[in-house]
Amino acid sequence: LIVPDSGTEWIIDAAGCPPERLAEIAPLRACCEELIEAMRLQVIGQPQWRRFPEPGGVTGLYLLSESHLTVHTFPEYGLVALNVYCCRPHEAPDWDAILSRQLGATAVTVRELTRGRGVVRDEAGNLHEAAR
Amino acid sequence: LIVPDSGTEWIIDAAGCPPERLAEIAPLRACCEELIEAMRLQVIGQPQWRRFPEPGGVTGLYLLSESHLTVHTFPEYGLVALNVYCCRPHEAPDWDAILSRQLGATAVTVRELTRGRGVVRDEAGNLHEAAR
Repeated sequence: LIVPDSGTEWIIDAAGCPPERLAEIAPLRACCEELIEAMRLQVIGQPQWRRFPEPGGVTGLYLLSESHLTVHTFPEYGLVALNVYCCRPHEAPDWDAILSRQLGATAVTVRELTRGRGVVRDEAGNLHEAAR
Repeated sequence: LIVPDSGTEWIIDAAGCPPERLAEIAPLRACCEELIEAMRLQVIGQPQWRRFPEPGGVTGLYLLSESHLTVHTFPEYGLVALNVYCCRPHEAPDWDAILSRQLGATAVTVRELTRGRGVVRDEAGNLHEAAR
């Protein structure tokens, strides 16, 4: 028996962004809002935003009914690190299109992880790690 | 030239937890607090917590000066999905010991991802995805 998975997490690392678009909250919020609308995600409560001192990275955290969306920026490297975790099946948006239009990303790498798997229950009811 | 990485994210999926320990905020908060202390992470602002209606999963989000810690529970499957993202180099705690003691996990799978890599800049200054 395989314990059911608990959804998909997309791990997105985008590079090549102009530093000024990563150093303020507004462009990041616009990017997250487009993703939330494209994926029809439901935000719960108020997202948390924080702009850090020089080099001025930004962090945003959204609590979703589907799990979470997080974003961190590294203006000094032109990098954005984005996570979207959906505990229910969900189609991926066009990460490349959204991140290049909203933040000027020129290279977007996407890793798609299934969460909660790799754990199997044997006939005696004991849980074991399975090969990944 | 390789664009510098932007830290490490640990993706932890733990199974075998008694459902009652995953259906209330208190045991999850205690688990997160132990991890934060063990890793000497710095919490910014107030963590967000939410308990969902039946089957009663819990979500917690911490904004850290090092990036984020998130947790989601699936009491119906005995599963916990935890993320810790540290944008600076950091040693991993003993995930097994902490998750088994705090939440009764019997199987803990850990994936350690380097964020922001896999992107290289060529001599003309253009960014390309590298093999992972």
